[in-house]
Amino acid sequence: MDIDIKEYLIDKIGEKRYEHSLRVVEVAKTLGEKYNVDLKKLETAALLHDCAKIKDKELLLKSARSFDIIKDNIMLENTELIHAYLGAEFARRDFGIEDEDILNSIRYHTTGRVGMTSFEKIIFLADYIEPVRNFPGVEIVRELAYENLDKAVLQAMNQTINFLIERGLLISIDTINARNSIILNN
Amino acid sequence: MDIDIKEYLIDKIGEKRYEHSLRVVEVAKTLGEKYNVDLKKLETAALLHDCAKIKDKELLLKSARSFDIIKDNIMLENTELIHAYLGAEFARRDFGIEDEDILNSIRYHTTGRVGMTSFEKIIFLADYIEPVRNFPGVEIVRELAYENLDKAVLQAMNQTINFLIERGLLISIDTINARNSIILNN
Repeated sequence: MDIDIKEYLIDKIGEKRYEHSLRVVEVAKTLGEKYNVDLKKLETAALLHDCAKIKDKELLLKSARSFDIIKDNIMLENTELIHAYLGAEFARRDFGIEDEDILNSIRYHTTGRVGMTSFEKIIFLADYIEPVRNFPGVEIVRELAYENLDKAVLQAMNQTINFLIERGLLISIDTINARNSIILNN
Repeated sequence: MDIDIKEYLIDKIGEKRYEHSLRVVEVAKTLGEKYNVDLKKLETAALLHDCAKIKDKELLLKSARSFDIIKDNIMLENTELIHAYLGAEFARRDFGIEDEDILNSIRYHTTGRVGMTSFEKIIFLADYIEPVRNFPGVEIVRELAYENLDKAVLQAMNQTINFLIERGLLISIDTINARNSIILNN
């Protein structure tokens, strides 16, 4: 199955994005060991998390429409959001994945959501902190990820919101709800 | 009616907060002239916008519960949010106000909301920029308010979100939805 996934991914998202996915696998497994989360499932989720990160926006939108993913203008304007939701659909259709941990971790790896499991937090964070990431603040999240998943996710969300504000971009309601719920539960 | 309002407000929220309200009235009227919005209604809304900013948190919560305002934990944790919603209820009950512009501008003066009218934007901004306000960034919003209401509201919301993130506080979903809709509509 691994060779198939590799060919599939390189064809769909290109070599660079595939290599990013391999790095996310490694980080996810390291975090999975620390937090005692199923490593085999993490590997699958990490490998597939960007499987719908199609560069051609028209093609991305066409696929998203065929799965009836686009619910509002916020979604339509935000390809980051679309590729995550669409990735879960591809994982189900093309690899027969029905496991909710894997599907949800792909679907919400960009935004997070209320009630994220440890599994979902690990995929979210592994994507954010994989070793080639080098944006401002990544080191803080990298350290926090090995101390406390909630604190790391909160810090990552805060930085993402700040980034979106700086650029004048839309902010996901899922992220805000997730952030609020982490604050309320800690 | 003015003397009654003055006594009512000083009794409920204290002299300092009453004086703040008078400053909000002045700014709201100046903006109202520029943007051609009903000055008399703006005066009433501005004067009453903080009428439920009760210092005693227990009393605030008790009042809020009696009006069934507290819908979730986010509301419960956020007295800023409560006083705005409760203010609209007090304005209706104690001053017989039924005008939706006035009530909505009081209810959403802290958070904003999707579909704010010019009237609501003016109350929101007048509260934010009245002359004694001196937090970082207030000058930018003060200037923008006389150029473009949407740009000023967006800037104020961005600054508020940044402030809430710095302090680790909850962020209102109404604010995020409002900010997203301003970006999508401009």
